[in-house]
Amino acid sequence: MSDLVGNCLMAQSGGPTAVINASIAGVIEEAYKHEQIEEVFGATNGILGVLNEEIIDLSEEKNSAIKGLLYTPSAALGSCRYKLDFASQDAGMAARAQRDCERVLEVFKAHNIRYFFYAGGNDSMDTADKINQLAQQQGYDLRVIGVPKTVDNDLPFTDHCPGYGSAIKCCAAVVMESSFDTEAMSAGDTCSLIEVMGRDAGWIAAGTVLAKRSEEDGPHIILLPEVLFEEGKFVAEVSSVLTAFGRCVIVVGEGLRKPDGNLVSFMAGKFEEDAFKHKQLGGVAEALRGIIEEKVGVKCRTSKLGNIQRVAGHLASRTDRDHAYMAGARAVQLAVEGQTGLMVTITREGDGDGVKFGTGAVALAEVANHVKKLPREWINAAGTLPNEQFTEYARPLIQGEVAPPFEGGLPKYVRLEKHFVEKKCPAYEAK
Amino acid sequence: MSDLVGNCLMAQSGGPTAVINASIAGVIEEAYKHEQIEEVFGATNGILGVLNEEIIDLSEEKNSAIKGLLYTPSAALGSCRYKLDFASQDAGMAARAQRDCERVLEVFKAHNIRYFFYAGGNDSMDTADKINQLAQQQGYDLRVIGVPKTVDNDLPFTDHCPGYGSAIKCCAAVVMESSFDTEAMSAGDTCSLIEVMGRDAGWIAAGTVLAKRSEEDGPHIILLPEVLFEEGKFVAEVSSVLTAFGRCVIVVGEGLRKPDGNLVSFMAGKFEEDAFKHKQLGGVAEALRGIIEEKVGVKCRTSKLGNIQRVAGHLASRTDRDHAYMAGARAVQLAVEGQTGLMVTITREGDGDGVKFGTGAVALAEVANHVKKLPREWINAAGTLPNEQFTEYARPLIQGEVAPPFEGGLPKYVRLEKHFVEKKCPAYEAK
Repeated sequence: MSDLVGNCLMAQSGGPTAVINASIAGVIEEAYKHEQIEEVFGATNGILGVLNEEIIDLSEEKNSAIKGLLYTPSAALGSCRYKLDFASQDAGMAARAQRDCERVLEVFKAHNIRYFFYAGGNDSMDTADKINQLAQQQGYDLRVIGVPKTVDNDLPFTDHCPGYGSAIKCCAAVVMESSFDTEAMSAGDTCSLIEVMGRDAGWIAAGTVLAKRSEEDGPHIILLPEVLFEEGKFVAEVSSVLTAFGRCVIVVGEGLRKPDGNLVSFMAGKFEEDAFKHKQLGGVAEALRGIIEEKVGVKCRTSKLGNIQRVAGHLASRTDRDHAYMAGARAVQLAVEGQTGLMVTITREGDGDGVKFGTGAVALAEVANHVKKLPREWINAAGTLPNEQFTEYARPLIQGEVAPPFEGGLPKYVRLEKHFVEKKCPAYEAK
Repeated sequence: MSDLVGNCLMAQSGGPTAVINASIAGVIEEAYKHEQIEEVFGATNGILGVLNEEIIDLSEEKNSAIKGLLYTPSAALGSCRYKLDFASQDAGMAARAQRDCERVLEVFKAHNIRYFFYAGGNDSMDTADKINQLAQQQGYDLRVIGVPKTVDNDLPFTDHCPGYGSAIKCCAAVVMESSFDTEAMSAGDTCSLIEVMGRDAGWIAAGTVLAKRSEEDGPHIILLPEVLFEEGKFVAEVSSVLTAFGRCVIVVGEGLRKPDGNLVSFMAGKFEEDAFKHKQLGGVAEALRGIIEEKVGVKCRTSKLGNIQRVAGHLASRTDRDHAYMAGARAVQLAVEGQTGLMVTITREGDGDGVKFGTGAVALAEVANHVKKLPREWINAAGTLPNEQFTEYARPLIQGEVAPPFEGGLPKYVRLEKHFVEKKCPAYEAK
């Protein structure tokens, strides 16, 4: 046990999920169990809130709001895509990252923050790692633990990422419903195409295979960024499905690429880069619709799930929600045990009905900026659908429902009141 | 009471909805209460199934499947967009419509079908009307009753259309969740834009205003086909919302038009016509995203709900489902009472908590091919949001939830087994 006494601070970063707030609830409820942790603070909008010293006192929140975090999607503290880019080619950027990191510790010291929990994806784990390193260099006693969070499921070392199970539960359910729609309209051959997230990895697109309870059920084809897109092969596959079933339901991950390495959506001229140098994608569904209508000669309807797929609280997976809570609570336990510089991982033992999940830990530095792709051996030989190995992996993650309360016919989610603590540091120019 | 003894046949036409199967259940369960109705048949794929004599015996279905229709979305009998286009400028088309109509009666006579129930929108009511007229001309005793169905809510004479309440419950819920996402990401100004259905009328887009429990809640701007789109005004409104809240959530109906009458999506070059001469739309969200990113200068994320918004069984409205059932059951009662050539309507009395819904009837000929637009006086002066008169109208339609059973983490919907009755007529070339 650590005898480090002080306050704790948590923050959320990157894209919201249906269950990241449950990680926050896990941190809060666990933190109150440990005497070493005096005050429980949250930073608004991730590391940006730390830089701006926008810190809220979570003990001022109503208990009903903390309980409400268990079914409220998105990121109740606010999030950000602000990156401490130490590795930037731009010397100015790298210098700013260093200044930002020093500022974080200035704020931590001013508020006696000794425990820092950061929920996010690989970029966030990199940020947490850098803060942990600088604290050690400065001799400031600080415990930094990362909490895995991403619908993309692309963090290494953890069996899966909280947020992913709910995203694929949502996507699989709507793909199932869209398939029923397409079936009803298949008096003439018809295609439906649903675009889901996934810049570099096809985890979300793959997860929609769970909607398939029989061969005739959609989705019939899943286009994964892990498998290069060949137009001729695709046209032949769609035609073959239409011959068999009179309909074809296709799911596509936004980051689908051609054999030359270019994005399929790039053909449609939509391309830009966000602050993290990721590609901001869109338009792959429309590009494919053009191919289907022109080359296969049948009507194709498109849907694009956009940000709704990652925050569908009304379709969240209870298993996923429980893992998110567990990851938050375990982060506090590790810190109190004296650990730092780690990310909580989710572990798996057994399979089928006997599957059991637990927690482990990995060094933040190991996680940072790595991307875990869908293994090729989890995809069928034709590259058109994930196979049984994948469904064995994914099925447990969507089990159980989280029913948010409804009021007036719609979900009733909570917002935090956000009582800010008094600022103690000079103003700082973030960005 | 009619003493007309014979079989009944029902069919579903046009776009599926989350609750149209409940109308079928209502017809079936009511039909079995009346001795005059001997066999209960269904045609697959709407009028196309009648033309092709693809008729199923619903008494052969499991009772659990009939009960399952109460929570299964889409159109369990199959649907179609086949139109009997008597009014066509093309003499060949009009002649074919006449032949089709005669074929329908040939099939009805062969199977002693004396009660015909057709669930659909205005095109389907036109088809039902023509069949009813020809039966009268031929002296064939037939009762034809239409059952209103459309997520578009654009049928006249009925307070609302079953299917609409569930569509807006789904759209409002996901817009609410998308708004939470946008709020979390609003450390830098950010916009989200959700495209919903609505070729000619903004009923679905308008319904998302129910997600708004306070001024800061999204949606902040709803673009309706009833209000012409002016780019300069739109850019100013988005900027104003961003100044107030740091985020802007926009909903747009696909049929949005510019002051010159052209579609906004037409700018993006996406345009084609379906068999009903309706415009098949797409791309308005991407067109607006371009305007926001270029003229307002902030990032904008898009979602397009496509066919998922009309078949979201997991988010269906219980009120809507009950109205769909009631409309089906009432259709049978009207026919058994000796009525024909009518469409069931839904009526409303009172308001607020005292609102009560019932049924009425209107001549099919009155309904056919009319479109009910959102009244201008239900939209605020700026044309940016529906007002309190609209929310008073729409709120009762989304009340209550229909929880489908879940199996393995996903909804468990039913399919009919479809036991076909023996064909008695010569083959016919439909289309």
